[in-house]
Amino acid sequence: MDDRLKRQMEFALEIDKEKNVFRQTHLSGNGRNENDAEHAWHMAIMAYLLKEYSNEPVDISRVMIMCLIHDIVEIDAGDTYAYDSEGLSTQKAREDAAKERIFSILPEDQKETMIELFEEFEENSTPEAKFAHAMDNLQPLMLNNSNDGGDWREHSVTKEQVYGRQSKTREGSEKLYELTDMMIRKHIKKGNIRE
Amino acid sequence: MDDRLKRQMEFALEIDKEKNVFRQTHLSGNGRNENDAEHAWHMAIMAYLLKEYSNEPVDISRVMIMCLIHDIVEIDAGDTYAYDSEGLSTQKAREDAAKERIFSILPEDQKETMIELFEEFEENSTPEAKFAHAMDNLQPLMLNNSNDGGDWREHSVTKEQVYGRQSKTREGSEKLYELTDMMIRKHIKKGNIRE
Repeated sequence: MDDRLKRQMEFALEIDKEKNVFRQTHLSGNGRNENDAEHAWHMAIMAYLLKEYSNEPVDISRVMIMCLIHDIVEIDAGDTYAYDSEGLSTQKAREDAAKERIFSILPEDQKETMIELFEEFEENSTPEAKFAHAMDNLQPLMLNNSNDGGDWREHSVTKEQVYGRQSKTREGSEKLYELTDMMIRKHIKKGNIRE
Repeated sequence: MDDRLKRQMEFALEIDKEKNVFRQTHLSGNGRNENDAEHAWHMAIMAYLLKEYSNEPVDISRVMIMCLIHDIVEIDAGDTYAYDSEGLSTQKAREDAAKERIFSILPEDQKETMIELFEEFEENSTPEAKFAHAMDNLQPLMLNNSNDGGDWREHSVTKEQVYGRQSKTREGSEKLYELTDMMIRKHIKKGNIRE
């Protein structure tokens, strides 16, 4: 096997580990915790189906691959819960080291492409990154909503925390933010999100 | 929420169930069984990274979405193991019913698009479908190879069965079939695949 294909296959095998990175979100039907690979798969399909609601036209292929790879760094860095302020303070350093190690398995040109995609997602300034972020927010919100807000109750999450995170959805899609806002209000009213 | 968005979100929630459809393949490191959502995520990233090996030029966005959705019907129909001849005889009828029920949740235009993609994958006649099939074969082969062929040993799989399935890879990628063939020969030699 030539060196290029060998590195690509080594990377393909390495990312299998993402299936063991578990998140705070639970599957619908009050199921088990979701892992990063499942979350990314779900986001990419949702992006494809909901693209008509993006505020700006997007290259959907770019949005999809961004969704698929955005959590690969968590293989080393672990999942940082959206409302864990201590974890959030060290998240960037942990993820930068992971990014370098994991993408370096690939041939140089593909390493560059993947890091570009990852950084575009992180910087959140292109229409594609903004729409991918909307999916990153909407997908767990949808699951949590289907489980009557159990994930918020478990972590005693406040209204400010939820809006702080979910407001990013608006930059990607006004229409999906309306839906987000509707769901949040419902769960505040039910007491699942603290005032 | 308008009816269109309501149906799209209902579908997005329905497919969450794919994360509970477990396959015969085990995760690397002799891990647990893999589920369909994880398998689809893995295939889509591999397609993106290995597209240079497709026998014919492909629209990679179409390959990726085909990979992501190709197992949705298994939510109702269950996973049919590649070497389960009894299951294989009823697979098409089970999957056709599932296809109709699940994709009908979507608005009519998206139902049509998804069924088109699903059927294109099944018919395996376009370059995109052939390359997606190559990923559908290579991804579990790679995991099984990393686990020293445990999945073949567990099911006493024969050389004929493995070549019968894996030969499809050749239609999508001669180069990746060479790699496939190399792995199969190794496992025949080690006695993990029966002669």
